[in-house]
Amino acid sequence: MDNLTVIKIGGNVIDNPAALKRFLTAFANLSGPKILIHGGGKVATQVADKLGIETTMVEGRRITDQPMLDVVTMVYGGLVNKQIVAQLQAVDINAIGLTGADASTVLAKKRPVKDIDYGMVGDIEEVDSGQIQFFLRQSLTPVFAPITYNTAGELLNTNADTMASAIAVDMTKHNTVTLIYCFEKKGVLRDPADDNSVINELTPTLYADYKAAGAINKGMIPKLDNAFKALDNGVSKVIICHADELATAVNQGAGTTLKK
Amino acid sequence: MDNLTVIKIGGNVIDNPAALKRFLTAFANLSGPKILIHGGGKVATQVADKLGIETTMVEGRRITDQPMLDVVTMVYGGLVNKQIVAQLQAVDINAIGLTGADASTVLAKKRPVKDIDYGMVGDIEEVDSGQIQFFLRQSLTPVFAPITYNTAGELLNTNADTMASAIAVDMTKHNTVTLIYCFEKKGVLRDPADDNSVINELTPTLYADYKAAGAINKGMIPKLDNAFKALDNGVSKVIICHADELATAVNQGAGTTLKK
Repeated sequence: MDNLTVIKIGGNVIDNPAALKRFLTAFANLSGPKILIHGGGKVATQVADKLGIETTMVEGRRITDQPMLDVVTMVYGGLVNKQIVAQLQAVDINAIGLTGADASTVLAKKRPVKDIDYGMVGDIEEVDSGQIQFFLRQSLTPVFAPITYNTAGELLNTNADTMASAIAVDMTKHNTVTLIYCFEKKGVLRDPADDNSVINELTPTLYADYKAAGAINKGMIPKLDNAFKALDNGVSKVIICHADELATAVNQGAGTTLKK
Repeated sequence: MDNLTVIKIGGNVIDNPAALKRFLTAFANLSGPKILIHGGGKVATQVADKLGIETTMVEGRRITDQPMLDVVTMVYGGLVNKQIVAQLQAVDINAIGLTGADASTVLAKKRPVKDIDYGMVGDIEEVDSGQIQFFLRQSLTPVFAPITYNTAGELLNTNADTMASAIAVDMTKHNTVTLIYCFEKKGVLRDPADDNSVINELTPTLYADYKAAGAINKGMIPKLDNAFKALDNGVSKVIICHADELATAVNQGAGTTLKK
């Protein structure tokens, strides 16, 4: 099976135009088929503020009422997604911007209300990896915004890390998949206060130890849970690295590589 | 060659959720391959107002500085486009939302400054109808937002009527194309004050007469110029009709049909 690289780029990089440009250049230079999933960054919160819509976060997840869903759809699905697509076109990557609703690529259902009502938030039900594969075969590079849809025709806000992981897992039907999470840190850190304390290799056992010791913090836990789940479900390799080190990390020369 | 219907839906319909839903149901029920191009509606102006960005229109065209381009990208490329895509998915149309930047479908160049600096506005250079045809062959229904891009990786605001006409013309390489402009009037009117004074057939000679008599007004002139240009360039039929009469108009039972 052909190699495929699925890359998630985080919000902090998207908020910094120079950093985003550097990242997109590195992304463009990666050989082989690839898929980009982007987060949202602070722009959604800024736009919501200006529109008088209050932002509520619970455990790092946005509570999405209908006005906030509209903001997220505008900012992630419109502004961020199309700017990335146009910038990739300028470096000869024939990008195609997608939400899960486009070409029915990522179907979700609205998260049931338990302790918290997250609002218009989607839990992924099904990825149409055949459709995505069909874009790749046409030398198109899919760029996903973290928005899905349900069969009732509603758009749903979806965590970008989860979306990257779900797409990577389903693409293993067609490809040998490497999943890379790029963000503003050099990898998973042994000591959150020391940016250079990168853990080169992380196993489930080591992960449990670091969590127990409190070294791996709240924000990293859902990311790593997603990442290990992807490994368990057929993804060959997961790397977590700084957006500026993508070119090196892809060959395991930087960042944290997760092993089963 | 297969028949293809290219439909442009105007802003006033988009601003009215019930009217949009009726239109999308009729669109979904049309037989054969089809392409939708949507305008923007008043939401962009409303969002711009709330964000403190002033809207300037010259002869019905929006002056697009960078902040306004961001609003247009959010609202047309994000909110409106993705809502339409999700609603079409709910009625079993496998829609794919696109700007011209996506899959490099519609390349433009920034309009040169003459008397008026329109800002980030694109004049269409090239439509990749082969790429669009490839989506159609996969039973995908392209839904275009009126945004294009240039080779420098900039997004550009583009008139939706012009975009519909340019796409329809280029698609004649592959299909027998009918172009339909749907809006809030029953067709081209003999008397702008009488909604029922629909001209059933309009030729270039009749068009010149009505213009000379002042019966066809300012807003209709660029639309009709575009429409006749499309006929001159290979489009088989152009129909201008009310969004609620699409099903009838497609068989020339309503609206205005343009003839060469």
